Amino acid sequence: MGDLAGQAVDGTLYYLDYPQFERIRRTELPATERVALLADMCRLNTLYMIARAGSGHIGSSFSSMEIFSWLLLEELDIADNVKAAGDLFFSSKGHDAPGYYSVLMALGKLPFELIHKLRRIDGLPGHPDVGTPGMITNTGSLGMGISKAKGMVQANRLLKQEGRVMVLTGDGELQEGQFWESLASAVNHGLHEITAIIDHNKLQSDTFVKNVSDLGDLEAKLNAFGWRVARCDGNDVGALAATLAGIRDDARPKVIIADTVKGKGVSFMEHTSLDSDVAMYRFHSGAPDGPSYRRAAQELMDRLKLRVAELGLEPLEFEAIEREPTAPPPDTAQRLIPAYSRALLEQAAKHPNLVALDADLVLDTGLIPFRDQYPERFFECGIAEQDMVSMAGGMALKGLLPIVHSFACFLSARPNEQIYNNATEHTKIIYVGSLAGVVPGGPGHSHQAVRDISALAAIPDLTIVEPSCEAEVGPLLDWCINEAPGSCYIRLVSLPWETPYVLPASYRLEVGCGVALTPGEQVVVFGYGPVLLSQAVLAAQTLAMEGLAVKVISFPWLNRVDPTWLTGIVNGAKRIVCLDNQYLPAGVGSMLRAALAGVVNEDVELAMVGLTGVPPSGSNPQVLAEVGLDAAALVPIFSFGLVDE
Amino acid sequence: MGDLAGQAVDGTLYYLDYPQFERIRRTELPATERVALLADMCRLNTLYMIARAGSGHIGSSFSSMEIFSWLLLEELDIADNVKAAGDLFFSSKGHDAPGYYSVLMALGKLPFELIHKLRRIDGLPGHPDVGTPGMITNTGSLGMGISKAKGMVQANRLLKQEGRVMVLTGDGELQEGQFWESLASAVNHGLHEITAIIDHNKLQSDTFVKNVSDLGDLEAKLNAFGWRVARCDGNDVGALAATLAGIRDDARPKVIIADTVKGKGVSFMEHTSLDSDVAMYRFHSGAPDGPSYRRAAQELMDRLKLRVAELGLEPLEFEAIEREPTAPPPDTAQRLIPAYSRALLEQAAKHPNLVALDADLVLDTGLIPFRDQYPERFFECGIAEQDMVSMAGGMALKGLLPIVHSFACFLSARPNEQIYNNATEHTKIIYVGSLAGVVPGGPGHSHQAVRDISALAAIPDLTIVEPSCEAEVGPLLDWCINEAPGSCYIRLVSLPWETPYVLPASYRLEVGCGVALTPGEQVVVFGYGPVLLSQAVLAAQTLAMEGLAVKVISFPWLNRVDPTWLTGIVNGAKRIVCLDNQYLPAGVGSMLRAALAGVVNEDVELAMVGLTGVPPSGSNPQVLAEVGLDAAALVPIFSFGLVDE
Repeated sequence: MGDLAGQAVDGTLYYLDYPQFERIRRTELPATERVALLADMCRLNTLYMIARAGSGHIGSSFSSMEIFSWLLLEELDIADNVKAAGDLFFSSKGHDAPGYYSVLMALGKLPFELIHKLRRIDGLPGHPDVGTPGMITNTGSLGMGISKAKGMVQANRLLKQEGRVMVLTGDGELQEGQFWESLASAVNHGLHEITAIIDHNKLQSDTFVKNVSDLGDLEAKLNAFGWRVARCDGNDVGALAATLAGIRDDARPKVIIADTVKGKGVSFMEHTSLDSDVAMYRFHSGAPDGPSYRRAAQELMDRLKLRVAELGLEPLEFEAIEREPTAPPPDTAQRLIPAYSRALLEQAAKHPNLVALDADLVLDTGLIPFRDQYPERFFECGIAEQDMVSMAGGMALKGLLPIVHSFACFLSARPNEQIYNNATEHTKIIYVGSLAGVVPGGPGHSHQAVRDISALAAIPDLTIVEPSCEAEVGPLLDWCINEAPGSCYIRLVSLPWETPYVLPASYRLEVGCGVALTPGEQVVVFGYGPVLLSQAVLAAQTLAMEGLAVKVISFPWLNRVDPTWLTGIVNGAKRIVCLDNQYLPAGVGSMLRAALAGVVNEDVELAMVGLTGVPPSGSNPQVLAEVGLDAAALVPIFSFGLVDE
Repeated sequence: MGDLAGQAVDGTLYYLDYPQFERIRRTELPATERVALLADMCRLNTLYMIARAGSGHIGSSFSSMEIFSWLLLEELDIADNVKAAGDLFFSSKGHDAPGYYSVLMALGKLPFELIHKLRRIDGLPGHPDVGTPGMITNTGSLGMGISKAKGMVQANRLLKQEGRVMVLTGDGELQEGQFWESLASAVNHGLHEITAIIDHNKLQSDTFVKNVSDLGDLEAKLNAFGWRVARCDGNDVGALAATLAGIRDDARPKVIIADTVKGKGVSFMEHTSLDSDVAMYRFHSGAPDGPSYRRAAQELMDRLKLRVAELGLEPLEFEAIEREPTAPPPDTAQRLIPAYSRALLEQAAKHPNLVALDADLVLDTGLIPFRDQYPERFFECGIAEQDMVSMAGGMALKGLLPIVHSFACFLSARPNEQIYNNATEHTKIIYVGSLAGVVPGGPGHSHQAVRDISALAAIPDLTIVEPSCEAEVGPLLDWCINEAPGSCYIRLVSLPWETPYVLPASYRLEVGCGVALTPGEQVVVFGYGPVLLSQAVLAAQTLAMEGLAVKVISFPWLNRVDPTWLTGIVNGAKRIVCLDNQYLPAGVGSMLRAALAGVVNEDVELAMVGLTGVPPSGSNPQVLAEVGLDAAALVPIFSFGLVDE
């Protein structure tokens, strides 16, 4: 489910405008040839969107382009909306959204101008959202697709509506238990309306599926579950069409293993161009770099020109747009993930019983150095968070010290019961959730971890911490491993982030206590992590120039507060503001505010700023502004406007 | 995972004392015959424990008795403790704990006097807990077993320890996705040390597995996943022994499908005595009634006597204990589940788009009347909560109004991410979690739902409510369906509970507002649900006799509070106490306290009472006393002692 933030490509970017698609759609070619051409045209637009956005999933969009195209252009009679009768289609893996969008745009089913607004707040989310035309369900957290399709089919039956429901899944996605959990009742209830198509592109987030967690004999497995199984080349439109036609009347739920090529259509992005033991596939997520973009775009355009000429059609007209370079994150930006990699190696050297577990995010979670240095102590679990967490439980019972890694959004929620089960055994396990918080905003709500603190808040003896900067990563990990009375959850912002503060040289960690980053007395602001604290300090700097001193407190203890320290630090305050990089209910602000009850009197104004609704997908500044957490939004709250009282 | 509270059996109860087991273990019989006899002897003790406790799982304990007995007596060389080298064994289903305990006691590995203390606070928990000798991991929430075993094996390899790891699973348990999620890496890493034994007793909580969610061709499925699969009669000790020997040297992880009989050993408890379309198997959980107990005990004793005579051994000496009758819950007790059943039928009549989903707890969640009246609108999903919740998501997108049911402990945690995913689609779904709170105390921490409020607290637009009594069930369900702006989670106490209060006749639901059950001004107590409120009112009655009036507020809105109402209701209070039938962090008390910050001054004393550590398994009064939530514990807190300030 990897989703690293990337860098937008500058220079000339190319795409094909809507009239080109309209024209090709109306050509008299055989359907399969027409669709194949359109699919390849969509590749150029998908590449454009991702290059322009600076992030997105090329490999998986490209592998599924012929599937999207055939289904939407020829196979299905799509319902006007999800509630209506007619065929329904969605992608369960979800990170192929750019590919899907490009086909919808080619069909005129999605406003074409959105091509310029992938991962922008008024544009197209990084993963599917029902707010976008054509998207009938929200995906991006994996394994839910068949279950949702079953719900739609059962509803159709009850509502006496006709229609097939087609679901595209990934192959790495099949590591999720919910996929297998969902298969049985589809058979038992004879839900023949469902066809699942597995985009079997052989690679998942990090590398080859077979190297992460081999699926074994997939056909045998699916057959054993009682589904009608077919298999074909998923990048061959004719083969796909014939396979769909061949199974259409089967009374069982149906699944097609569509053998595809990850990155299909651009020679150096195709997985078949890689050694099968490649450590890391470069085009799963994130935009390509400039030279890669230009090579890829040129290859696509050259082939399209040739193909159009071969078919005797008028040449395609490519649109070109010039893009100014965007500044990369400065070298001075705080990079918590590399800092964590270093801290983990230090601890690993001291603790021979320390082991690390990963769920197919070895790059994003900073585990590559550990894996390279301690291969026997590294466990790649695949996209199987429940399994990973319970495995860690078993290891901890045997006396190991497991450190469990995934994105915060998944790690806190998918194995939520498993984390609690481990906690009831009173072993020590460290959970490390990266990609914490509302930014990066590009991937959208499936990946924005803004309820992990509350989801884990009541796990007994679990301490939740979040470092404010690189310098605090090592001490916090050290505390979790060597001092914490029980298990811990470490929340890490993944984005490189410029911080307008440094921790005071004298600062030492003390449980439940924070440290002031700026001086002040009348206004006291609590925050945690580089994103919140940067915005708070910037706001404080603005107000300092206006003569108002605002004390910004870095508070790394997300579910612990020392009441004596708290009472002291707010002494004399007229206004107290708690910031949350998560939903307000049951967040850190809620905990601090509860601790302040009976401590501060009615004349103290209390405000809480954090998320109140599902955050949008967008650029990082857009999203921070939208949820009211950027410096500009904080200035009036610090100074006079209260969000809440 | 059904776990209804039952009623202890009175009259004469029978068991076999430790010396009887010691003697039989030393007999010169062939091992398989000796083990078969001991297993049957353990049945009598298991029956005794459950009858005495008033609840427990007979069917699943009986079906697995030969498996437990052979493994522990002959097959395995059990490690001294989980950290040591040697063989390891545990039951993943966990509800067979009484059977497991009886074998450990027969072996002298568990103090024999604990036979009298099943589900008592200083005794044996309802589900396995590592605090009990012989229990190496906590189970009771299903599907985690293979994952944990894998962790143990990987740890053994790293620690250079030898030993097999054997896991007993249920068959209903195989509906959980985590089971399938856990299979792949065991094969990919060649974890031949693992042997899973599936106690394939054909029934799950409610009825036959095949009627709930048919497993299909189980052998084919397991073979397809690459495990070494064997099958035998799991109640035939010789067959089991031979099967284990036959697969022992296979280099793959191994699984034995042990065909067993649920309730094996007592004719009328054996599932083979039932019609295959029986609606409800009576001996999954809960104690048998008196006549059933006596018939079963007599049958077991008769057979044991006969068998011992056939084998030419000295007769067994049966211990008999007289038990006073315990009072059943009075007719006046509040029964929220039946009230919910009625309320649901009322709503269903008005809303043709209302559908109900269940996860193998149709009795416990009160769904039988709905299923009978609206079979086409009832969806039995099996023990597959993630699948159920995502199915509900698909149904809601199509315009249905899904009401999703399970125990609160499972529903809030296992599909935690799926509930959030649904919430991001802004559809309306009602989640109903029964068995909420810390009592019944018998089942133990896997079933005590004491972190569901916090786990769901930050789901956007989800309102969490809990009725205080039968009269409030209908109005709250009505509000959730017809008034709530988004989805809802209804938390239901399942135990019949005598309430020393009634809601005022004039009381009407108002979001975020509660109602006073007792008059008072200086001391204000907030609580919710019949368990908390009963104890609070009893404590208030005690104090009223001492001249202190305590205002107890029934507050059914677990994540909403109206600040104006709150300010008014605490006006004049010198002491405010918030009660939580969940862990304190991120509970209702925490929310109320946060809302009181800046409202009340330093001279108001604030206290919060709720869970701070993993609750014990025990009788209901024991558990309430232990966690400080019974009336006796509340009296001093209401009157002068503060837990927290």
